[in-house]
Amino acid sequence: MIIVLKPGTPQSAADEILAQIAAAGLKPLCLPGTERVVLGALGDERVLGNLHLENHPAVERVTPILSPFKLVSREWHPDNTVVRIGSVEVGGPRIAVFAGPCAIESADQMRRTAEAVRNAGAHGLRGGAFKPRTSPYSFQGLGVEGLHILRDVARSCHLPAVTEVVEVSDVGVVQEYADAFQVGARNMQNFRLLTALGNSRKPVILKRGMAATVEDLLMAAEYIVAGGNPNVILCERGIRTFETATRNTLDLSAIPHIKRVSHLPVLVDPSHGTGVREYVEPMARAAIACGADGLLIEVHYDPRSALSDGHQSLDPDAFKGLMQNLRPFIEAAGRTA
Amino acid sequence: MIIVLKPGTPQSAADEILAQIAAAGLKPLCLPGTERVVLGALGDERVLGNLHLENHPAVERVTPILSPFKLVSREWHPDNTVVRIGSVEVGGPRIAVFAGPCAIESADQMRRTAEAVRNAGAHGLRGGAFKPRTSPYSFQGLGVEGLHILRDVARSCHLPAVTEVVEVSDVGVVQEYADAFQVGARNMQNFRLLTALGNSRKPVILKRGMAATVEDLLMAAEYIVAGGNPNVILCERGIRTFETATRNTLDLSAIPHIKRVSHLPVLVDPSHGTGVREYVEPMARAAIACGADGLLIEVHYDPRSALSDGHQSLDPDAFKGLMQNLRPFIEAAGRTA
Amino acid sequence: MIIVLKPGTPQSAADEILAQIAAAGLKPLCLPGTERVVLGALGDERVLGNLHLENHPAVERVTPILSPFKLVSREWHPDNTVVRIGSVEVGGPRIAVFAGPCAIESADQMRRTAEAVRNAGAHGLRGGAFKPRTSPYSFQGLGVEGLHILRDVARSCHLPAVTEVVEVSDVGVVQEYADAFQVGARNMQNFRLLTALGNSRKPVILKRGMAATVEDLLMAAEYIVAGGNPNVILCERGIRTFETATRNTLDLSAIPHIKRVSHLPVLVDPSHGTGVREYVEPMARAAIACGADGLLIEVHYDPRSALSDGHQSLDPDAFKGLMQNLRPFIEAAGRTA
Amino acid sequence: MIIVLKPGTPQSAADEILAQIAAAGLKPLCLPGTERVVLGALGDERVLGNLHLENHPAVERVTPILSPFKLVSREWHPDNTVVRIGSVEVGGPRIAVFAGPCAIESADQMRRTAEAVRNAGAHGLRGGAFKPRTSPYSFQGLGVEGLHILRDVARSCHLPAVTEVVEVSDVGVVQEYADAFQVGARNMQNFRLLTALGNSRKPVILKRGMAATVEDLLMAAEYIVAGGNPNVILCERGIRTFETATRNTLDLSAIPHIKRVSHLPVLVDPSHGTGVREYVEPMARAAIACGADGLLIEVHYDPRSALSDGHQSLDPDAFKGLMQNLRPFIEAAGRTA
Repeated sequence: MIIVLKPGTPQSAADEILAQIAAAGLKPLCLPGTERVVLGALGDERVLGNLHLENHPAVERVTPILSPFKLVSREWHPDNTVVRIGSVEVGGPRIAVFAGPCAIESADQMRRTAEAVRNAGAHGLRGGAFKPRTSPYSFQGLGVEGLHILRDVARSCHLPAVTEVVEVSDVGVVQEYADAFQVGARNMQNFRLLTALGNSRKPVILKRGMAATVEDLLMAAEYIVAGGNPNVILCERGIRTFETATRNTLDLSAIPHIKRVSHLPVLVDPSHGTGVREYVEPMARAAIACGADGLLIEVHYDPRSALSDGHQSLDPDAFKGLMQNLRPFIEAAGRTA
Repeated sequence: MIIVLKPGTPQSAADEILAQIAAAGLKPLCLPGTERVVLGALGDERVLGNLHLENHPAVERVTPILSPFKLVSREWHPDNTVVRIGSVEVGGPRIAVFAGPCAIESADQMRRTAEAVRNAGAHGLRGGAFKPRTSPYSFQGLGVEGLHILRDVARSCHLPAVTEVVEVSDVGVVQEYADAFQVGARNMQNFRLLTALGNSRKPVILKRGMAATVEDLLMAAEYIVAGGNPNVILCERGIRTFETATRNTLDLSAIPHIKRVSHLPVLVDPSHGTGVREYVEPMARAAIACGADGLLIEVHYDPRSALSDGHQSLDPDAFKGLMQNLRPFIEAAGRTA
Repeated sequence: MIIVLKPGTPQSAADEILAQIAAAGLKPLCLPGTERVVLGALGDERVLGNLHLENHPAVERVTPILSPFKLVSREWHPDNTVVRIGSVEVGGPRIAVFAGPCAIESADQMRRTAEAVRNAGAHGLRGGAFKPRTSPYSFQGLGVEGLHILRDVARSCHLPAVTEVVEVSDVGVVQEYADAFQVGARNMQNFRLLTALGNSRKPVILKRGMAATVEDLLMAAEYIVAGGNPNVILCERGIRTFETATRNTLDLSAIPHIKRVSHLPVLVDPSHGTGVREYVEPMARAAIACGADGLLIEVHYDPRSALSDGHQSLDPDAFKGLMQNLRPFIEAAGRTA
Repeated sequence: MIIVLKPGTPQSAADEILAQIAAAGLKPLCLPGTERVVLGALGDERVLGNLHLENHPAVERVTPILSPFKLVSREWHPDNTVVRIGSVEVGGPRIAVFAGPCAIESADQMRRTAEAVRNAGAHGLRGGAFKPRTSPYSFQGLGVEGLHILRDVARSCHLPAVTEVVEVSDVGVVQEYADAFQVGARNMQNFRLLTALGNSRKPVILKRGMAATVEDLLMAAEYIVAGGNPNVILCERGIRTFETATRNTLDLSAIPHIKRVSHLPVLVDPSHGTGVREYVEPMARAAIACGADGLLIEVHYDPRSALSDGHQSLDPDAFKGLMQNLRPFIEAAGRTA
């Protein structure tokens, strides 16, 4: 940790801070420059954080040397983590594709859609029973009834099921019905929910928040892993920027960055990432090309009738085309379909 | 609602959409232009939303005419709403200042801080018992013990108490101990929490999310009001942008905008908005100057020892100075201190 | 064009605006809704812009139906445009790769770098003689001497040369020495420069500004094409967002979007887009996968000695690897290397 | 300067970098930590920049201790700079207000507007002759004819004149006709223009770019001052964010930040900052409240007929009201009107 002092700070203030560092069991260093005094503290910075040196009035700024996350970092765990959702491995050689509607609307809708995605080669089924909606007047999901439908359809299609959990009190029921939890962008920093998921052993697909840096995302994953659940899969789904041509700005550079700093597998959701049906396939290809371990794709057997996100959902034919066109890119990336 | 069709759309597709509009009980309109066919639908657009016309493959885009919120809009409720927190009116002539530490750390810390802010003229006490923290290794708050401390200190200082609620299951206990709920930026779109707060009648201070537009904020408020709780106070606390000189970018233009489109009172939190102790006072002044109804300010009796956000907390002297220096700006704004 | 009037607007104001629309030779429409009066104007909206209806105090907002660009739009020109830089076609089946150092530093540096990129399979040489630098104390480029070096080296290596132009008064000399102009992100809205380039017939690689929407980029291209120069190539190079793990946020979704709304070819610059050497290759692959027509890559024979952007420059071996690894992705995309 | 090495870097690489630092005449320091080796370099970091240590493959990141600007920094020049535009002092006790239309449209328009703003108490006249416009089909300004009109009207009203310069070749003619240059947001990093203005002694109002940090703005100012022109006035006019309720997001926190790190005076432009007529006055008040030295306000004698930016222009009555209502805020800020 590097501590830059304000200009004109008296030596006594520097000494006071150095003493604090030493008292915490770390090695203090003083680097008197020509315009600024800089202090250093050698040792485990995560302990050092509790000194709150940034509060000191003589301190201009504190720069950590180490990343604030540990369990999810590649430095501490050099090998890739592979997470199993049912029989599907995420983070291994095979590109994992989870597809299905935004919201579970009916048994018929789920069955038709699930059969279509399975026949096209999807490895898992997704669908939301608890829907976070911007407007209180929009369809809010079928709740537990939706979970029933999801489990029934997933079983009959032999696909593992992924669904979103939005509340601590729902963790139990979702765990019972689904093969993996999904945490949506709006809940990425719902720390109570993350803590609850840390107590489970079911896999968690953790989506990046709209205003979250990759570091924020990894800190959120650290909550779950630190709680005891190592089965975390990250998901890039676009961040909010000034560009309005797409619903969000899909930050694909986050993929090689995450792969460098973390050992966790990472998916990409080009449906939410772009919000435009026509851009889903090209961005799915790009995601695989830059190293993603898999995809989340919104598919509806009849997007025109969808109760949410129909404009970004693929119909069965478009999804089938995507899966076929993806194949050469998967091979080019040295992965398997 | 205006529906722009893709170029080359056949008349049959336009007719199909017009029929859908009519079937929903709205008045359909067809405006054939030279390069595009544009359709219109006259009537309550909130009903129209359920048609999901944006899903139709012939539709290029759908532009709503009316705002998606209703109960919180000034159009439907032209007069300013005044919300009472204990004996403090927010949204009336008096500028309401809520001050206190980021986190409740101990009875001693709260007592010393509460006395300081009361003596300086604050109208309410703030302090967090449940703390959302980016890192699982940071101090997470004292929980219910903190609520005890908050209530005891607030009562003995005759100040109403405001504290953050982060989870549906805590709504009951927070309601018991505090005079108002605070919903933090990270929970602004925790719709289950908003729904739960809609069932209370205690006031809710709803902070704007880091990636939330003002429209998103008003939609979140609409959840609470639609649930039955009209006592919502909005709070601007900075959004996330590329600028790193300040912790967030305090969007003060949101204040006159909110005042124009909504009847709800609005506070500003210059502590989180800037993240820099020295900028809290100038931005507090600016907030009053552009029409805010009050302030949330982080104060700690000894910021150097603070367990969170000490770098942006004022000490008692600085807060006293702020309150004194604010007075002429409050008068200039035609309000009372 | 759709004109939404403020609530409570008297009919006389609506009539006045309708008369203005009619007087401009367009067809006026009045759509009286239950909560708002909406007006329409059918005809060429680019003419309508001169009415400045948004200035009218009764107007709440004006929503254009058509895009503000015309010559660069695919609607007006459905076929892909192919632009030739020397013997290299950009926008045809072959993926075009332009590589070279950020700045021209010496004849020796250019020669070594140019030979390396040619041997690895690059189709064109890039290098800056006029460098826009954030700091006045940084290396500002060799100027005309740099152009000399660029031309000599490019000729001896049989590669066309691309270099940045930053000023109207340099257009002549750059045109003399280079095979294509590059307009940097900071000059994307230097309209005088765009106008000057519209008077040339040399190709222009137009980079997207850091705060520019795709629509802004296309409007900048429209300046050049409207001036008479149809040879415009767009380039995505990252936008500025809150994420700091990468220098910019490479917005690859812009590629399918540009391809849909415009006929112009588009390159991607993953070097500036990420600012991190290790992320250049994965993002180059992703760019090809989502439809880019080519790449701009920073290569230096010895990045450690580079006077600018060395941290994001590839060395010859890394570039050779990139070109080899790109090949299967180019084939997967149905293009040729 | 602090240099963090990658994990596992051999001592030989560290020694090599330390030798480079020493060879540059600076004091090298080695801080071997438990997880990372950190190096330090004490001395003038602006010299150090030329070592390009960030290019070294063993370097993870380089953190400067000092700000990259010097001449514009308060550390090097603790007293406030006061810049005179004609007879108007900017940065002294008096709040300076420059008002006028976005574009000079005719002698009549300027005269009517100038008289109105002078009578309302404005201290200077603004108006654009060279207009940077997003669309090539929009009104581009009257050019030199506009400068004639501006000077004539300004003289007859006894107001100093401010106008935008967009091109190096126009610097001479603008200098002849105007009392101060304005550099627009799109040209903030037009370094050739900044260099040309450094050769003048006329004051320069430098507007912040839409994607520029305050540090970028100060580096742009450093170009002008380093060139020999100390008469630089900064101007905050809004940055680009995801919020679309306002044209830009006016970053008023930048005002106290600039005042802390720089000695230059700073204006605020609430017209471009908000893009909404109704928000100009409240944001002008807020600007004064947080420490701005003055304002740039768009006023048109008849905004409905304005050829550009009419929707954000005040009419004479509204401007008169703004000036009157501003007075108590100016007094509250301890300034004079």
